[in-house]
Order: sequence, then structure tokens, then C-alpha cells
Amino acid sequence: MKEQVTTPSTTVLDTAELGLIDRYWRAANYLSVGQIYLLDNPLLREPLKAEHIKPRLLGHWGTTPGLNFIYAHLNRIIRNRDLDIIYICGPGHGGPGMVANTYLEGTYSEIYPNISSDTDGMRKLFRQFSFPGGIPSHAAPETPGSIHEGGELGYALVHAYGAVFDNPDLIAACVVGDGEAETGPLAASWHSNKFLNPARDGAVLPILHLNGYKIANPTLLGRAGDEDIRQLFTGYGYEPFFVEGSDPHQMHQAMAATFEQAFDRIRAIQQDARHGAAGNVCPRWPMIVFRSPKGWTGPKEVDGKKVEGFWRAHQVPVSNCRADAGHRKILEDWMRSYDPQDLFDIDGRLKDELRALAPAGKRRMGANPHANGGLLRSELTTPAIGDYAVMVNERGRTVAQSTEVFGHYLRDILTLNADKANFRIFGPDETESNRLGSVFEVTNRVWMEEIKPYDVGLARDGRVMEVLSEHLCQGWLEGYLLTGRHGLFSCYEAFIHIVDSMFNQHAKWLKVSRELPWRKPVSSLNYLLTSHVWRQDHNGFSHQDPGFVDLVANKKADIVRIYLPPDANTLLWTGDHCLKTYDRINVIVAGKQPELQWLSMDEAARHCEAGIGIWHWASNEQSAVEPDVVMACAGDVPTMETLAAVDLLRQNIAELSIRVVNVVDLMALQSNEQHPHGLTDAVFDELFTPDRPVIFAYHGYPYLIHRLTYRRTNHGNIHVRGFIEEGTTTTPFDMTVLNELDRYHLAIEAIERVPGLKEKRTDTVKLFRDKLEEHHRYVRQHGEDMPEISGWKWPFDNNGTRLT
Amino acid sequence: MKEQVTTPSTTVLDTAELGLIDRYWRAANYLSVGQIYLLDNPLLREPLKAEHIKPRLLGHWGTTPGLNFIYAHLNRIIRNRDLDIIYICGPGHGGPGMVANTYLEGTYSEIYPNISSDTDGMRKLFRQFSFPGGIPSHAAPETPGSIHEGGELGYALVHAYGAVFDNPDLIAACVVGDGEAETGPLAASWHSNKFLNPARDGAVLPILHLNGYKIANPTLLGRAGDEDIRQLFTGYGYEPFFVEGSDPHQMHQAMAATFEQAFDRIRAIQQDARHGAAGNVCPRWPMIVFRSPKGWTGPKEVDGKKVEGFWRAHQVPVSNCRADAGHRKILEDWMRSYDPQDLFDIDGRLKDELRALAPAGKRRMGANPHANGGLLRSELTTPAIGDYAVMVNERGRTVAQSTEVFGHYLRDILTLNADKANFRIFGPDETESNRLGSVFEVTNRVWMEEIKPYDVGLARDGRVMEVLSEHLCQGWLEGYLLTGRHGLFSCYEAFIHIVDSMFNQHAKWLKVSRELPWRKPVSSLNYLLTSHVWRQDHNGFSHQDPGFVDLVANKKADIVRIYLPPDANTLLWTGDHCLKTYDRINVIVAGKQPELQWLSMDEAARHCEAGIGIWHWASNEQSAVEPDVVMACAGDVPTMETLAAVDLLRQNIAELSIRVVNVVDLMALQSNEQHPHGLTDAVFDELFTPDRPVIFAYHGYPYLIHRLTYRRTNHGNIHVRGFIEEGTTTTPFDMTVLNELDRYHLAIEAIERVPGLKEKRTDTVKLFRDKLEEHHRYVRQHGEDMPEISGWKWPFDNNGTRLT
Repeated sequence: MKEQVTTPSTTVLDTAELGLIDRYWRAANYLSVGQIYLLDNPLLREPLKAEHIKPRLLGHWGTTPGLNFIYAHLNRIIRNRDLDIIYICGPGHGGPGMVANTYLEGTYSEIYPNISSDTDGMRKLFRQFSFPGGIPSHAAPETPGSIHEGGELGYALVHAYGAVFDNPDLIAACVVGDGEAETGPLAASWHSNKFLNPARDGAVLPILHLNGYKIANPTLLGRAGDEDIRQLFTGYGYEPFFVEGSDPHQMHQAMAATFEQAFDRIRAIQQDARHGAAGNVCPRWPMIVFRSPKGWTGPKEVDGKKVEGFWRAHQVPVSNCRADAGHRKILEDWMRSYDPQDLFDIDGRLKDELRALAPAGKRRMGANPHANGGLLRSELTTPAIGDYAVMVNERGRTVAQSTEVFGHYLRDILTLNADKANFRIFGPDETESNRLGSVFEVTNRVWMEEIKPYDVGLARDGRVMEVLSEHLCQGWLEGYLLTGRHGLFSCYEAFIHIVDSMFNQHAKWLKVSRELPWRKPVSSLNYLLTSHVWRQDHNGFSHQDPGFVDLVANKKADIVRIYLPPDANTLLWTGDHCLKTYDRINVIVAGKQPELQWLSMDEAARHCEAGIGIWHWASNEQSAVEPDVVMACAGDVPTMETLAAVDLLRQNIAELSIRVVNVVDLMALQSNEQHPHGLTDAVFDELFTPDRPVIFAYHGYPYLIHRLTYRRTNHGNIHVRGFIEEGTTTTPFDMTVLNELDRYHLAIEAIERVPGLKEKRTDTVKLFRDKLEEHHRYVRQHGEDMPEISGWKWPFDNNGTRLT
Repeated sequence: MKEQVTTPSTTVLDTAELGLIDRYWRAANYLSVGQIYLLDNPLLREPLKAEHIKPRLLGHWGTTPGLNFIYAHLNRIIRNRDLDIIYICGPGHGGPGMVANTYLEGTYSEIYPNISSDTDGMRKLFRQFSFPGGIPSHAAPETPGSIHEGGELGYALVHAYGAVFDNPDLIAACVVGDGEAETGPLAASWHSNKFLNPARDGAVLPILHLNGYKIANPTLLGRAGDEDIRQLFTGYGYEPFFVEGSDPHQMHQAMAATFEQAFDRIRAIQQDARHGAAGNVCPRWPMIVFRSPKGWTGPKEVDGKKVEGFWRAHQVPVSNCRADAGHRKILEDWMRSYDPQDLFDIDGRLKDELRALAPAGKRRMGANPHANGGLLRSELTTPAIGDYAVMVNERGRTVAQSTEVFGHYLRDILTLNADKANFRIFGPDETESNRLGSVFEVTNRVWMEEIKPYDVGLARDGRVMEVLSEHLCQGWLEGYLLTGRHGLFSCYEAFIHIVDSMFNQHAKWLKVSRELPWRKPVSSLNYLLTSHVWRQDHNGFSHQDPGFVDLVANKKADIVRIYLPPDANTLLWTGDHCLKTYDRINVIVAGKQPELQWLSMDEAARHCEAGIGIWHWASNEQSAVEPDVVMACAGDVPTMETLAAVDLLRQNIAELSIRVVNVVDLMALQSNEQHPHGLTDAVFDELFTPDRPVIFAYHGYPYLIHRLTYRRTNHGNIHVRGFIEEGTTTTPFDMTVLNELDRYHLAIEAIERVPGLKEKRTDTVKLFRDKLEEHHRYVRQHGEDMPEISGWKWPFDNNGTRLT
């Protein structure tokens, strides 16, 4: 840590302003320490006693004074320039600082009137922190002005960029801790600058806060020299500014001057792009490297060990304050060093001259409506899905590509909402590969680096965000949604696992947000998972994993939905539905390959609204009695294999009574007591019978169906086939055979599960097994599926008459 | 793309060598194209006909010629300097290139004798690629010399670093594609240089292969200018060298000269560290930026559209070769441009003068034993776990910290294996926080940046790898294990989800490896998940997620194990057991906080060997009849709450007959038909009874227990309580109450589930409900748990007599 500030040496603050901003910072620091430690005696009007101290000391001091310092200087620049700024606090552990600052600016008490701007309110403010029934220790949905939790590190910068896309007047000041800077997602997100268009987007001001330490270690960038850091961030495409030191007054001058420079740069870049000639280069945005001591202004030493400027300041720097008078003395001296009487009046209110340092109204970062995006959200304009419907003239004989059809709908969403500029599509370089290419009729991919004459579909103002990082796609979309817009993430199914943990955190954010009345609903996070497990036969085993939905199903029922539309019209319905929902995470799994189409648009709408239903046209059961077997399916490939199995059975065992049940909305399988979409037991029993064998062909790992249905009457007869982790590069049908989800295995299982049938039908079973053998030989000889397999179509006309 | 090579201009290759290396490269390119396209006519001895072409063209050409170019030049430097090099192929899509090169050097035919080094072998080599029953399209376990799949991008560089730790003579040449370079994990892994000690570790030579395009887009670094790239990698701490162009002869000269320089640098850094004075700076290792056209030497244009040097060359550049004679002509001209007669003799063997260019024996990269680490693996020396056992003098009254005890064992593992230098511990800055700190008695954290006088536990030769990136921890460990060593990854439970997808890919790698007789077993990947959901009360909701094991349970039963040791001695047993296994992924979930201890070492060993068992000492059932209720538990906190519930029940309803079952090995719950550790139905019924209510307190999401037991006789009576996604910053006990996993809820449910009991015991239920109310009030007032809760101990002595 250098004791000299390096950049710049000019004096921006006069003595009065310097004094004021330093007092404001001290007030925030005081409130931060108070939250970590105090149950009572908030203004230290009496000597600190054991009973004033919380029994469990929780919270993180280390990063907090730096966060407070930045907040105070952002307040200043907002006031001076009337800027629209939100604060993304990457070191979410610095929750006390975010709470302290929104309390100082008055936002906190407006949202939580019981935490009033007086001594009693301050007492409650301190007490509630990390206290049962109170607020969490981190910046969280409960924190005004926050769209970022920061518990799991890595996503501050992508959230910041997501927030400013299509928000030309917004600036996201994003503090990245030097711990977080070690994570993969954060390391990649610096490249987000190549996707930010200064003409139509806002700006991000990254502030890399190097305090040098993690929990028990130095950090990589904290120990790196300035020259390495300058080169690194110049290489990332930024113009780095350095603010370094520990002397508060020097640091205030340096920060104020550097902010002036940085915000000048931002304004110049934007004005140039908006009013000048649009150059063919990605602008070099400013970023700030801010080196300050960990636990700055806290105890220098405790028990003879270095604390300030070291990792021992990370959490609670002096910990035994209730039992140990010496520790308590350190705490009291520390708190009094901020001179609370100089900051708060006799009633515990922030003194007027300090109060004046905060911006007013919505310019306060805790009150900025962008950080409570539901306030700004306007509904997406959606076209009528009927306009895109596949005409299923011959049920099960018409072929279409589900995602291609859905792409037409998305294209028109883009057109209809072009003026509002509130919808984007995100994905890792796969929009075209996932057959959503018709969106490129009306937009392009965003690209701010050089565009060459032979490039295709790149533009500065594209609305498709493609980067080979699922982390960036997810994080940008989260930031975009949390600030009140709409979007879709289209991804290869297997690789959505890359963002499992980000999904978890967003689900947690939504769960808590929904419990806060002041947080207004934001649009749902919509996943379209395609290039799925059954059609990654060309890419092989590493690309074959349908397990994301298992993770999703663990989350709160109110938050999550899983849809498996079997064809294009059902995909249209579910996609349209999901884009209109809010405060949820919707997962749609649908294929991109040419597939048979089953339902007209009207039928699709009815089926999807119910979420599950009997396909009478495919069944041959008699209405008066229960069928011999229920052939159930969920997912496009399982649906086709099930119907092909039904065809085999009906051809070979005419007397077998079969019911076909298709599931679009997976949550319908659960009890209505477990999920709002769940069926009652009575309805479930009507569909699946109380006692007949159910052969269930499922898209993913079979266990999920068992866990969703284990309480149902007939669960003991539900036999699920799905992905059993067998895969390689092979043919599409061979993938189903490897996992025993193919038509022959399904038909054989039906025969074996219907009581008494197996013994009578050994010939049919043998026929099917021979077919499997024939398939096996054929693909290994020819490298493609037998024509009778790949060319199979539903052999009945729309009246149910078998075609010759 | 510049047409001039930039660095260096010296001429390293004489005309003869230049000609030879170019022919070798052409041979590899020829074999790569042949694999993608040909069923027959491998040497083009006759004109190419439709029937020679595969019906489904699968594979990725774009990256392949560059990979082949690098391979040829690595061969040269290996021969010239007798180097020990493995090739990590980040662009795993370049599978044809890896196969082609290992075939050329002879390794492939040694491992797969049916793919012989002659015309017939070449025909089979071509045919098998991406063909049913053949080999996958990517570099994969089937590929000789590979430890890296590359299907899911991002992990090439961490695998490379993991491979060379403690392998001082090994160099991992690691090709990073410019697509992969956009991912988060890869962006962070450049920082691995700060953990590489040139005195004891080998070296990584990163080769950033910029061919400019992904599937349908330019890449960020592909479009960045040299100066930005130079600054970026200088900032990361490397010395970048550039090799750029498209003229093969110039590029050969440039690559040969650059390799000479780069390997000189590596040697100098190593010699300096090993024989000179050890400086206090992290060395500036070389890396190479290699810009070559995508699809280099392939068709320039197809159907009037740019292919070479553009993204259209990514997969199959000319696709309709079976049906379209014009396309077929392009393919034939392309393949003949390599002049196969100049490369292979009349029998289809690589000509002798070219064969001589490959290294010999184990120096061939396809035959390097480090890439088949089981060949080199030596057993870990482990101490007797009894030496670390907690003496449980008073069962359920002795307190210990499980992970702290396990830390002592790990410390001695480090000591016992210090000479072999084949064990490391990985984790994101949490070794101390996870209470494994006693390992620092004998080792340190690796740290190659500056070490300050007041730093604690940092050293150049530490064996603990800490970085705030779960991706790096996981990837390094994978590379370390796959090259034949041992390790442990200790992680906060919630944040292990960050590497869900890496876990998936490693499980897939193991699944396939185990099916290949020539791949020798490697040590298991062992996770110690601590700071778990029930003891993240201080960090709050974002740190509370026990769902990783759900993901794990989806994988092949042969591969995965999940252990939930309830105390220190059971953790010792399971940890010791896991470290001795191979070709598996073991997940151990265990707490770090002070907890009651239940089993002596002998009891723990018996219990863990069985995986599950009745705790007779906690039960009060009579042996002759079935108990009224089974109180089952898995996990340390659920075990304590269950025993506390048993205490409550026994105190209040003396006549209730209770059995306590504890589960350590979660896979025991499955059927023995589903998992090798599964219980038979008969044994399961003996433990859980066929018909009595089972109150199951489980560590994670309750569904997992249902899905593991849904086929069991008594599953309808199994009532599971676990984490239901309710959490915040609160007290430890309040966390269990929020999720209704606490002793009172468990006891109430037992009363409610035992037929007829509820009606008789409304008073007891009310008592317990009142206690919950009392708790609720108490924690909100005092901020800590009631003493009777936090101080609860098992109230019986070792003879089962209740203590007063």
C-alpha cells in the first residue's frame, strides 16, 4: 500500500467541502460499525457496556469503509452533475455500508418507517442487522437501491452492464472487490465493454476496490503492481485511473478529482457517439483502481496482531467485546474516533449540513427506480401467436422445427417493441444454430469491435447478445430484467449447468423480493433450452445433460416453472405465456430439429393451459373402462417415441387398450398442495388411473418424475424411462436406444407391465427385440438410422383411420 | 489477419526440414479431412464417388489445421530437446486433429490395433470417426494423450496447470481457442501463473489460437488488436510472443523460431529457480498468440461464400458432397491438395522420412504416461485414523469440530507424502475458515507474488491451493488427478454449485474412461463440503444451498458416492476411505462447528462400513416387536435434531417405542439393483419396517430421499424434512425451525404420524408448539438461541441411564 496518492494531484475540494465529505464518510462508517456491534446506546451517550453489545457479532467490516468512501463521492458527483447513478456493490458483504448510506440519505426510513431518522431509529437500525427477524448481513433484496446480492461473488460487473443496456442516461457505478476479481465470471465480464454502445446504452464505471485481502489471504490483484494492473485493464480495453493511499484527506482529493475526470470521459464518449461521427472503434471507457486499506479507519492492532490493512479486518475485527473490557475499549475508542456528536444532532438525526450532501429524491442511489425495476417495467407488446401457428393438416405427419417457428414470433416481438427498446435475446453464439435465425431479419448481434465487410449479422445496435460465456449471458439478462426490461436466454441444454449457481442466486433473490411489498414485480427470467440431450447425437456425450430442470425443481414452487412443449404450436403457446409472466424463472425445453407436429394451435392452447392431458386421438381406449396401459410422455423426442410405440402396439396387439397422456407443464405432476400448477389427486388419478401400468417416457433423468409423483395413488405402477447417462456421437434414434427410451423398449415394457400379456405375446416381444438388433446392425453399417425409423410418421389420418 | 508473420524473422528451418515439417502437417490435415468425410477410398486411389462419402457429415474442421500445425512443431521441439510434453487441446472439437496426429506417430495403432498403420487401418480410422459404434467427434477419453475433453469450453488452461504441479520435468502445451477464451473460467485461469513454482513444478506453455471466429460470430480476442492483446497478457503476467499469418512456409519458420525462444525462456526460468538465487518475484512465463485462418488450407469459397478465414469453416465446410458433384469436386480437390501420394506409401503407411519426425516411445504426446495418469499413480500413504479419533467418553455429551479433527489427519497425510509430493488441498480461501487449519503446521498456501513480512501461512512451496475461484480449484484438481496424483477440494457447500457443470464433465470423463481398458484408474475427486446450509446462519440465504448432491445423484451409480458423516469419527472414516478410492467422485458433507459426538472410532467404522444402521443406544424399542416410529436422520445437524426429538419424545411419552436409524452413505437408500452400495429390499425393510411411520430428518432438499426410496415397501410412510429453501441471517437453531427440521417439529410429526397417538397427546403437541413460540420470541429478543437449545446434550449415560 503506497502512502502517497498517485493520481491526480490537483485539488478539487476546498477545505469546507473536504471537511463535509469526510464527516459524511465518518457518519457512514459509524453507522456501519454500530450495525455490526450494538444492541443499544447507539450514539454512545453513555460509556459502552457489555449489555450494549450483540451476543453474536456478525458482519464484514473490511470492505465497508471503502464502499462508504465511494458512496460519499458518488453522492457528490450526482449532486454536482445531476447524474442518474445506481450503485452495484460487488462486495455484498459490505451490507452495513449500503444500509448505512441509504439510511443517511433518508431512503431507508421512507421504505422502512420503523427505522426512523432519530436515535430510536438508529437503535433499531443497529439491532436489526444480522439479527433474527431483522435483515441479512449482506446487501440483499431488502437493501434499498440494490439489484445485486453479492453473496456468491462474480456477477457485479455483468449486472451493472445488464442494467445500463438501453438505459442511455443511466450510469452503473460498480464496485468490484479484489476477492471477486479472482473469479472466472468476473474476469470475463470486463469484456462486456465490447457490447456497450455509447449511443444508445448508458455507462458502467467499474471501480476495482483493491484492499488487498480475502478471508485469510492476499488477493492476486491486490498484490499485483500498478504497472501490471494498468496493462491488464488497458488490454481489456479500459482507461485505468488509480486512486491509492490511506490518508483520508489526500484520498478525498484524489477521489474527487478522479471522479471528475472519469465522468468527463464518460460524457465525452457518449456525446461523441450521440452527436459526433460514429467511429468504427470500441470506446475506451474509464475504470478506477481504488487501493485503500482493508478495514480502513478501524483498529490498527488487536491483541498485538495487525488488523487494519490486513485480512484480520475482514469480518469482525475485535470480537470479544461483550466479555473482554479491553476489546470493548478498542471498540468504543474506534467508534468515538468518528466523533458521533459531530455528525448527529441531539435527536440522533444527521446534521443538516451533512444531510445536504446527499442527492434528493430519485437521484438518491437508494431510491433510484432502476434499482427497483418493477417500478419502470412496461408490458411487452406481443403479437397473436395464431399468426405463427403451424397448420397441422396431417396430425403427426406434418414436419416443422419448433424453435424456427418460435423464432418468427421472437422476430416480431423485436419489431413491436423496437420503440420501447426493452427486449433483448441472450445466448452463447447459438441463436442461429438454435434455429432462431429469423430474428436477424429485423436485428443483428451487438458488436462494438471492428466490423468487416464480409461479416454477417453484426451491428452496433443489434438486440441479440452473443458471447461464448453463459455467465455473461445470464448476468446481463439478470441486470436487464432487474431494471425493468424483458429478455430470453437461449442455450444449449447441457451447458446451462454452467450457470446453475447463478440460477440459484437469482431464484433466491426473487423469493425474497416477492416477500417485500415495496419491491415491484420484474419480468421472469426465461430460458429456452434447445440443442437438447436427444439431439446432440453429433456432438457427443459432453453435450448431453438434461439435469438443469432437477436443480430448478428444488426451488420454491412460487418461483419456478418447467415446460416441455412437444411441438411448435405448444412451444409458441408456452413461450408467449412465459414472456408475459413476472417474478419467475421459466424453463422451456424444446428441440430445434425437424419434428412431427401433433396439435393445431387451438388444441395446443387448450393442452398447454391444462398443462397435461389425454391425447384421445392417439389412444384407443374405450371410454367405459380403464385402459390396459397408460403411455405417458413429456418432451418432444419422448413424445414421438411414445407415439411410435403406440403405433407398434396397436399394429401388433389390436386388443390392447391404450391411453396416451402428454405432459407439457412438468409441475402439474406435483400435488396441488406442493405447487400452484399441481393437479389434485382426483384429477391425477383420472388421468393416470389408480392401478394401471404407466409407461412414462421422459425427457430428462427419470428420477424427477418419481420424485414429483411419489405421493400419487398409482406411483408404484409408474415406470419411467429417460436419460440414464448413456451417450456418444451416434445417430438420433440410437441415442434413444442407448438409453432405452426408444419406441421398441417402450412397447416391450408396456407388454411386460400389462398383467398376463407378456406370456401371450412372446412373439411380439421377440419381433421388437429383433428390430432393435436390426437397428444396431444397420447404424453401424450405414452410419444413419433405418428409413423406417427416421421416416416414421403417425399412420392415422385426422379421423383416426389407419392409412395404408 | 496479417499476411506477414510478425515475430521473429529469423530462419530456423533449413529447406529440407521446412519441407518435411510441412509434409507432416499436410498428412495430419489429410487424415483430419478424411475422418470427417470418408467411408472408403481413403487414399483417393480412385476418383471420389458419392458412396465414399459418409451419409452424415459430423466434425469440426475450422480449428483443426491450426491444432495440427502446433502438434507438428511440438514434435520437432520434443525431438530436438528431448522434452516431456503433453498436449492439452482446448478446442476439443478438433478431435480429428488429435486422432490424426496420434495415428501418425503410431500411438493410435498401438492402443487400437484394429486401426492399423496401413490402408485398411486408414479406412477404419476414417469410418469410425463420429460414426455409430466408433469414436466421438471431440477429443475425449478415447483419444490417446488426452486428459481434456473440451466439449464444454473453459477448462483447458486449469487442466494444464493442474497437470504440471509437482511434475518438474513436464511441460503442458495448452492450446486455448479464441472461443474458449471468452469464457469466465478461462479468463480467470490465466492467473494460474501466480501459483506455479518453477523450482518444483513443471511449465505450461499457453498457445492462444486466434482463428477469429466462433460458430457464427467473430471472437472478442480474435478481433482485438495485437497491442491490446500484448497489454492484456503482459498484465496477466506473461511474456507474449506472436505468430501470425497464413503463408505456410513463413508460418513454419515463425513457429519454429518462436518455439525455440519460448522453450529457451522456460528453461531459463526453471534453471534460475532451481540452481540460481530464488527471487521474490513471480516469473514472467512465455505464452504464444498464434493467429491463423479458420479452416486454414481448406476451401476458400463454397457456393460463392467465403469459407477459409471465416466462421463458415467452423464445422463441415462443404456439406453436400454425397448428392452434389460440385461439392464433391471441392472436397476431392481439397484432399488432393495435400498430395497423399507424397505422404503415404503404396501400403498406406506414412513415409519413413515423415515417420522420423515424430518423437519415439513415451515422448510421443499420444503415449505420454502423464496423460494416462493411472499408469503413474502411486497409492497415498495414509496414517491410522484411530490416532485422530475423538474419545467419546460421554456419548452425545462430548463436543468436537468434525473438520478440525479431520484437519489433523490431513496434516499427517501431507507429512507422510511429502517426499512423493503427490497430494494437495484445494479450496477458495477457506481452508482455515473450514477449520482445516492444522495443515498449516506442516505446509503453507502456495503464493508466488510478493510475500510481506506480516503475511501468515504463505510460501512458494505450499501444498494448499487457495484462490477465490471454485472453477480454478476444481480444474487444477482435475488436472492433478488425471496425471496420477491425489487431492481434496474443500468448499462452502452452497458455492460448489459454481462448478456443477465441471463436475458433470468430469463424471462423464470417468464414466467413459472406465470403459477403456487401456485407461488406468486415477484417484477419486473428493469434495469436502462444509460451512453447510445449517451453519451459514451468519452469512444468510445466499450461502444456503444443499442441492449439489442432487446433481451428483443423477450420475452413473458406479461413479458417485455421497457421505453425510454425523460426527468427527465418522468423518475420519469416510475421509480416509474416499482418499483410497479411484475413478470416483466422492462427496462428503460435514460441519465445521462444535458439535456433539456420537460414536467411538470402532463404532464409527462399523457404522460407516455398513453405510446405515440402527442406533440401538438411542432407541427404546423392544426387540420382539416393531417400533411405533422410526426416527431416521442423515447429516450432522439433522442427526442432532433427531436425537433431541427422541429425547423430547422419551421424556414426554415414555411408552412410545422408537427406533433411530442413521444414514452415512446416502446411496445405501437406493436399491442394490440401482447402486452397488444399495440395500436389498429385505434389509431396507428390516431397518425401516414395512409399515411404521418414518420421520426422516435429512440434510438437503427432502425430495432426494423420496426419489432414492420410492420403490421401497414402506415409502408411503416415509415423511422427510429437510431444507425447504427458507433461510436468512439468524441463529443456528432458528435455521432449522424456519425449515421445520428442528426437534419440536420432528417430535410433533412423530406424534401425528403414529396412529392414534395424536388424539391422546394433544397436551404434548401443545407443549412443543409453545416451545417453538418461546424460541421465536427469545431469539428475536436476545439474538441468540435459548440456553436449553444451544446447550442441549444427549441426556443418557453410556449405559442408557438418564442423567438427572
